[in-house]
Amino acid sequence: MPHPPLPDDLRALLDKPNPAVVATVRKDGHPVTVATWYVTDGDHLLVSMDDTRVRLKHLLRDPRISLTVLDEDDWYTHVSLVGRVVQTAPDDGLVDIDRISKHYTGRPYPDRESPRTSAWIEIERYHGWGKASS
Amino acid sequence: MPHPPLPDDLRALLDKPNPAVVATVRKDGHPVTVATWYVTDGDHLLVSMDDTRVRLKHLLRDPRISLTVLDEDDWYTHVSLVGRVVQTAPDDGLVDIDRISKHYTGRPYPDRESPRTSAWIEIERYHGWGKASS
Repeated sequence: MPHPPLPDDLRALLDKPNPAVVATVRKDGHPVTVATWYVTDGDHLLVSMDDTRVRLKHLLRDPRISLTVLDEDDWYTHVSLVGRVVQTAPDDGLVDIDRISKHYTGRPYPDRESPRTSAWIEIERYHGWGKASS
Repeated sequence: MPHPPLPDDLRALLDKPNPAVVATVRKDGHPVTVATWYVTDGDHLLVSMDDTRVRLKHLLRDPRISLTVLDEDDWYTHVSLVGRVVQTAPDDGLVDIDRISKHYTGRPYPDRESPRTSAWIEIERYHGWGKASS
């Protein structure tokens, strides 16, 4: 798997509001996956979690994650990213989730009550398939 | 997360040719994800891997996996499965991958040369979102 920087076509793919699945590891080492929204943030990915999510506990303990992004237009084009969470912060004012929600739905995030945490992911390796295989 | 048996609506969702992402763990414990085809096989899932795939090595060493299935009609409906590979076998005659390929594309698998391995996954826990949240 190559290291960053990502080629332009992969960057363009990641910039779209694609379905994605993120994996973290449980305390016992078992992998757990869940669908997620993300946005690109410079050279990082930004994801947001409700503070009650088990996955937040997982990645605060072990920041190693992997994420597979499926092209929203054709899921046979997909890219898998291996990396780690390099920063987490409370999403005061829900600024980050609003940015992510607008990217996917065009609207601010509907739940204004539940506290959320933002996590920034540094990509260490990537591999693309289909049209993203360059 | 509830244990099986899966409710009927989740079973119906899983029976469709949906995009899915599977996570295994590397030797160093890092999770790795990749898009995958699967079919349901009674109470198990069946996946197929080219014998050269690193992921095959991962799951022969550590059978614990997680898989998130996105509804092909609306990816906001998705289900995450936690389980383990309970059996692997060489796919002699490419019988299994042909079955999977026909499920997704209507055609046998095009590559008749590369040896493949089949893996059967036992679901231990599941969690659905969206229309699959019952």
